[in-house]
Amino acid sequence: MIETPSLVDQYCHGVLRTELGLGTFEAQLAGGEGLPAPGTTFFDTQTGFAVRRWCPPLLGLEPHCPPARYLARRRELGVMEAGRRLLRGSGITTYLVDTGLPGDLTGPGEMASAGAAEAHEIVRLELLAEQVADTSGTVESFLANLAESVHGAAANAVAFTSLAGARHGLALAPEPPGPGEVRGAAGRWLADRRVGGALTDPVLLRHLLWIAVASGLPLQLHAGLGEAGPRIDSADPVLLTDFARATAGLGTDLVLLHGYPHHRHTAHLAGVFPHVYADLGAELVRTGARAAAVLAEVLELAPFGKLLFSSGARGLPELHVVGARLFRESLARVLGTWVAEGSWSPADAQRVAGLIAAGNARRVYELEK
Amino acid sequence: MIETPSLVDQYCHGVLRTELGLGTFEAQLAGGEGLPAPGTTFFDTQTGFAVRRWCPPLLGLEPHCPPARYLARRRELGVMEAGRRLLRGSGITTYLVDTGLPGDLTGPGEMASAGAAEAHEIVRLELLAEQVADTSGTVESFLANLAESVHGAAANAVAFTSLAGARHGLALAPEPPGPGEVRGAAGRWLADRRVGGALTDPVLLRHLLWIAVASGLPLQLHAGLGEAGPRIDSADPVLLTDFARATAGLGTDLVLLHGYPHHRHTAHLAGVFPHVYADLGAELVRTGARAAAVLAEVLELAPFGKLLFSSGARGLPELHVVGARLFRESLARVLGTWVAEGSWSPADAQRVAGLIAAGNARRVYELEK
Amino acid sequence: MIETPSLVDQYCHGVLRTELGLGTFEAQLAGGEGLPAPGTTFFDTQTGFAVRRWCPPLLGLEPHCPPARYLARRRELGVMEAGRRLLRGSGITTYLVDTGLPGDLTGPGEMASAGAAEAHEIVRLELLAEQVADTSGTVESFLANLAESVHGAAANAVAFTSLAGARHGLALAPEPPGPGEVRGAAGRWLADRRVGGALTDPVLLRHLLWIAVASGLPLQLHAGLGEAGPRIDSADPVLLTDFARATAGLGTDLVLLHGYPHHRHTAHLAGVFPHVYADLGAELVRTGARAAAVLAEVLELAPFGKLLFSSGARGLPELHVVGARLFRESLARVLGTWVAEGSWSPADAQRVAGLIAAGNARRVYELEK
Repeated sequence: MIETPSLVDQYCHGVLRTELGLGTFEAQLAGGEGLPAPGTTFFDTQTGFAVRRWCPPLLGLEPHCPPARYLARRRELGVMEAGRRLLRGSGITTYLVDTGLPGDLTGPGEMASAGAAEAHEIVRLELLAEQVADTSGTVESFLANLAESVHGAAANAVAFTSLAGARHGLALAPEPPGPGEVRGAAGRWLADRRVGGALTDPVLLRHLLWIAVASGLPLQLHAGLGEAGPRIDSADPVLLTDFARATAGLGTDLVLLHGYPHHRHTAHLAGVFPHVYADLGAELVRTGARAAAVLAEVLELAPFGKLLFSSGARGLPELHVVGARLFRESLARVLGTWVAEGSWSPADAQRVAGLIAAGNARRVYELEK
Repeated sequence: MIETPSLVDQYCHGVLRTELGLGTFEAQLAGGEGLPAPGTTFFDTQTGFAVRRWCPPLLGLEPHCPPARYLARRRELGVMEAGRRLLRGSGITTYLVDTGLPGDLTGPGEMASAGAAEAHEIVRLELLAEQVADTSGTVESFLANLAESVHGAAANAVAFTSLAGARHGLALAPEPPGPGEVRGAAGRWLADRRVGGALTDPVLLRHLLWIAVASGLPLQLHAGLGEAGPRIDSADPVLLTDFARATAGLGTDLVLLHGYPHHRHTAHLAGVFPHVYADLGAELVRTGARAAAVLAEVLELAPFGKLLFSSGARGLPELHVVGARLFRESLARVLGTWVAEGSWSPADAQRVAGLIAAGNARRVYELEK
Repeated sequence: MIETPSLVDQYCHGVLRTELGLGTFEAQLAGGEGLPAPGTTFFDTQTGFAVRRWCPPLLGLEPHCPPARYLARRRELGVMEAGRRLLRGSGITTYLVDTGLPGDLTGPGEMASAGAAEAHEIVRLELLAEQVADTSGTVESFLANLAESVHGAAANAVAFTSLAGARHGLALAPEPPGPGEVRGAAGRWLADRRVGGALTDPVLLRHLLWIAVASGLPLQLHAGLGEAGPRIDSADPVLLTDFARATAGLGTDLVLLHGYPHHRHTAHLAGVFPHVYADLGAELVRTGARAAAVLAEVLELAPFGKLLFSSGARGLPELHVVGARLFRESLARVLGTWVAEGSWSPADAQRVAGLIAAGNARRVYELEK
């Protein structure tokens, strides 16, 4: 039996502080991507079934109990107590929390105390740029404040994350934009922008990526599923090949998040470039009963030292539970099968499980120091 | 044991009325795509093996008997009687029949009586336009007759189907073409066209799609495998993302047919857009012993209320049998495994099986009224 | 139990003649694609684990023994004796050897005697062109010598192989370039070129392909994994669709090598075009414990008479062993499962196994004559 007592969730968000009804809970299950079709419900998805499989027992109910019964029990306990039971039942020992989502979500400190775990912050580059834009009067001050702000964030965060894939698509020019280009784009953006306006300009997105690369902190790039982007092929991680080549040897690691359905491309890049890592995030939570099959596909090309677990969860502690439970069960099943077939030795399987669950993340994010 | 007593084949064609020899039968197995290579036969394919697995017992022979023996028995019974036994043995209770293929194929009425089932018509948009072109003298009369003809067809059919993906590729501009653009394209097409000439003009293909959308009837779009198109990536359903966005909220459902090998993209779109549905068609018949594995991949992202069974069969009643048997066996095996693993409850598995086999199609095509 | 006593490795390279240390051996495991990341090793990959699973017993050690112990035993036996034991233990009965790689590698004759097997030569088109360029003074003599050289090579080789996919990408114009275009490209290439300079010009790459097609010898095209190309989507075999259409009916077979992760596209092309064949090469060696799953995906669309085994091995006889063992075990497991489920008959499974292991290659490369 393969065990993973330590579990680093290398990419997730906080949980909602408000009580949820059936409809608001259901909307969170789908990550806010549209409404269910008439006559259907988001509970009838792999994510919905996985929540009903893993979460009711943590609140004292039978697995697979009806959604209404589960939510009644959740409200009975209260959002705080239910969250505590769920997070503590997930098995996650360290949370790396992207704090850049809007909404009333808990931060790393609350995640740590609710989950009886460690927690660290991941800084979202685009939000940082938007906050700087909100408070900068001129192009020059914006650009100077931006560089300083990224530099300052690097002191307290364990990683940066970029949404360039969802904001513009990953078909970005791989090299850093020139200073004149950046000034021009910043001028146009600031002139047109209202307070809070989102950053989607490709020149500024690239500029941000390269400031982050210069910081030396690992840089997480959204690819494939996760954020609802313009078209799923515009987030194919293969589009990052030239950016990976351009950043090779600079000392900054790239972590490709949520590659599904192009996770074999992610695994390929992790095999070819020493500084590229592959995340197992949204694909496990989204594919539920199929998580082991998807995990096995990632394990084809990705070197075992280059894979990182995450839940990709946001809003509901149920999603942290599901991500963690599906990961552990899938990993134990996939590696256990290979041991039973004689393909892998038991010692190797246990060692690799420990790397993917926690060891690789500890090394990449320097969590021990 | 998961049962699906009702089975709606939401996309198929009729069967040939003529007796077939070994060579003509073999050609139908491959859907007419080229010849077998020297030294090979289309019987040595997943489809060929699946026909030999499922069909001989329905005609009183052993499974896997040699093709020549099977065809001798088929001729002995006669094409009508063999067809009756096969269709009645398929388990299909409702056929939705695309009547737009050339050749001497049975229509919905004959399918119903031969198969002791219900049957309804699906109207192929491009054929309708070609028929209207054959009988219209001017651009103005063509366009007026076309609109009227689509409107009239909507009264008797349960759905429209479009071959735009095979005729031109799915990389079509998503918005409706302007009236001047349509008149220009119609003028050029009618001027160059001989009677029976095929519609491939992208402006007119888009015009047809939008007339169909306005009718409110579900619109089936060929994507991935199925029809032999110019290049398989030109039929990637991801190319329909912008068309799906443009038609969202208009009240017309889109059904993406045969997405394989891009069926994970189809499933994604069915998850993101409330009005988009995913078909399980050609992939089951074409992949045979692998049908359960392919089905499981579709079940990763597609909400369970958005999946529709079809055989995609054409010409041979054997293909209806194979589509239906592979579907039922695959669904029972995949969902049964998830129940055995504890991932799904037995009641949920049975309910979802009923939705995919018949319930979703009944709701989308309003078959109960 | 499905047996494959004959095994034709239809695409491989020779093995290194020099003793290897831990570091040089590890680099060969990854095909020379970059360095391992700090804190990781290429032994922690599916290929590394498969080598440790299959090779130690052939040298008298326990499966899964540590790399250092394995390499000590290898050095103790000597590179020649270890190579003999490994190749003879692979089960390969015929090697088709691409002799166009640089480095001190054994040729077909040495492979035959070391492996107690047959061996034939595959000629790499680009190397031939580079050698001709090294010794030709003018454009006219280069082009005349090139045609003659390909013609001459065809007399002794069993196939040509082209790296156009890795050198330029497979998005090449499908038709043969015109004579003026070829002369212009040759003039520019020869003028700029130093001795040994690589051929990457797309016009000359296409010219070479068409000379090879005219020879009538099977033409192997690198696609997907294998050689480290510019971007993995530029080697998607779907890009060869128009070239396949342009060469249909000319009497020359095309063999698509290493399609992974686009192997379903390769299988599709093998199903649609009578002269297109699908190779099972690098994907088995690179995916190790997942080889059976990948093999099963190829078996979805590819007709069983169109599939060819290869190891794709280069440099290490361990890779020939791993390719052959993974293939045999995977094939027996996949087909055996289908027999156990009743999907295939035992006789069909055994027959198909023989075709993929050896029969198809014997027919395509005319190895019996």
